[in-house]
Amino acid sequence: MSRLPAIQSETSIAIIAHVNPDGDSLGSIMALGLALKKKCSNVNIFLNDELPGRYSFLPEVHLLKKYPSCDVEGFDLCFVLDCGDDRRIGEIDLLKKSKTVVNVDHHISNNEYGDINFVKTDASSTCEIVYSIIKEELEIELDQQIATCLYTGIVTDTGNFRYDSTSAHTHRVAAELLELGVNLEEITFQLYQNNSLNSTKFLGYILNQMEVYFEGKVTLIVVREEVLKKYSLRNDEVEGIVNYARDIEGVEVAAILKEVNSNEVKLSFRAKRDYDVNQLAKEFGGGGHRKASGATVAGKISIVKEELIRKLEKMI
Amino acid sequence: MSRLPAIQSETSIAIIAHVNPDGDSLGSIMALGLALKKKCSNVNIFLNDELPGRYSFLPEVHLLKKYPSCDVEGFDLCFVLDCGDDRRIGEIDLLKKSKTVVNVDHHISNNEYGDINFVKTDASSTCEIVYSIIKEELEIELDQQIATCLYTGIVTDTGNFRYDSTSAHTHRVAAELLELGVNLEEITFQLYQNNSLNSTKFLGYILNQMEVYFEGKVTLIVVREEVLKKYSLRNDEVEGIVNYARDIEGVEVAAILKEVNSNEVKLSFRAKRDYDVNQLAKEFGGGGHRKASGATVAGKISIVKEELIRKLEKMI
Repeated sequence: MSRLPAIQSETSIAIIAHVNPDGDSLGSIMALGLALKKKCSNVNIFLNDELPGRYSFLPEVHLLKKYPSCDVEGFDLCFVLDCGDDRRIGEIDLLKKSKTVVNVDHHISNNEYGDINFVKTDASSTCEIVYSIIKEELEIELDQQIATCLYTGIVTDTGNFRYDSTSAHTHRVAAELLELGVNLEEITFQLYQNNSLNSTKFLGYILNQMEVYFEGKVTLIVVREEVLKKYSLRNDEVEGIVNYARDIEGVEVAAILKEVNSNEVKLSFRAKRDYDVNQLAKEFGGGGHRKASGATVAGKISIVKEELIRKLEKMI
Repeated sequence: MSRLPAIQSETSIAIIAHVNPDGDSLGSIMALGLALKKKCSNVNIFLNDELPGRYSFLPEVHLLKKYPSCDVEGFDLCFVLDCGDDRRIGEIDLLKKSKTVVNVDHHISNNEYGDINFVKTDASSTCEIVYSIIKEELEIELDQQIATCLYTGIVTDTGNFRYDSTSAHTHRVAAELLELGVNLEEITFQLYQNNSLNSTKFLGYILNQMEVYFEGKVTLIVVREEVLKKYSLRNDEVEGIVNYARDIEGVEVAAILKEVNSNEVKLSFRAKRDYDVNQLAKEFGGGGHRKASGATVAGKISIVKEELIRKLEKMI
């Protein structure tokens, strides 16, 4: 029996994800939205930010509404996807205006803020949970478009089935999605083979700038606003770089500090085996997973960096 | 019914792969060897070269025999795995000395040189074929060690399930292997998170040296012997770098030219969508797949480079 309230064709539905959307949040809101549209006429898929360029190949993204710029009424149901913390949803508080909030997430830091919570911290991705909700709770048939969105979320959040959140179930879901007609060549091309020449040059530059601390156990990458401007990179082109800093022999924790402006820094952390960077991110008011987390911090980048090094020294 | 001759406990068996072994060739020879050892007492797994460091975590690799240095008798059965061309097997011609040669491969360039050929060009990897042979032809039960070898071959040859040779079947095999106890965290760590600091610095250097031709459709990386020495890299640490050159917007073909010595060059090619680099590799006496191929060429690197650029100009 479904844990969701009865959904009629006239039920009004909002679907939202976290700010700075990634493949899993975009894949999951689009997949759930496309599925619900088969049943309901009033489905609204909201995005806080611009759609990152590398995800513009996802089907039907023209349906996305940028929500600080549109009038938002209350909804019968508000699905919040891939969002460990209700503070990460952004400016407008859709949650308070909606009758029932459904929280669907796999982050270990999730604080179960929904009226109904589908929180599975052992799922590889929110898309893996949405797959089950569409099939088992909503009993809506998957199609090629929905499968494409779900597959994209799964591959981006598992580092292509590399992270240990990948289970036999994850692979079986992937198998079924491929059979629904997912164009793997196209997804691989769009996500991984279409980097700008500038972002590749930037990677070369940044690997030369990388700082090594605590006998090689920690690597730090500092990205100044002016460098981002020089290479004219989009935000989503910087995301994966912290992985290079982690994937070095002996490194346990890698961090990237990205200067958003002179008084704001975005931190991303990666851990390898024994360290918990979810805890570290929490100390900066953020969160995520044990091995991948982040936070946005007010302050000058040099000060934030000093604070980070102090915290890392205690941790390592 | 099995296509293989009857295998008794005293049947003598050799298992070999191609020179310059990669994850798929090592994974497949080890998996098949460990499986056959459950049934036969005389199983010999041969390797032409040193075991590349990143694969030393594979179970039971101490069983590998380096075959130019040991006396080789004739065998009842000789399995040649992941080898498109019998010239790629190396110095000693085990094939002529063996009663029955079994050719197991997925390369499109395979010329069916075996007495029995299991050539499936739509398989993601030789490991995927070996999985079926162990289960269906040999009817030997898989275990955690065999699964680890097979999983390693599948992930390395599919670029972590990214290449379009990845099928629903590939994912279902992967699911079953994980259920047999494959330690995904360990495989990911050994293959991807344990790069030397030098190889990461080398990546930065090489991305800055990359050459761009034909209005951005071709990228070329030239690696001189002295640079390899300067960074003291192992051969297998250079392998993946050509992918960075391919994965740039607008690039159709990427090539790396690695100077083996003053009169030998190893070429690796990658194509994106419309070009066939198997054909290009054949022109240099090599082979592989449509989108990934290679060759080893005699000659000075500067001369080989000129020849390559001429061929690319015709192709693009």
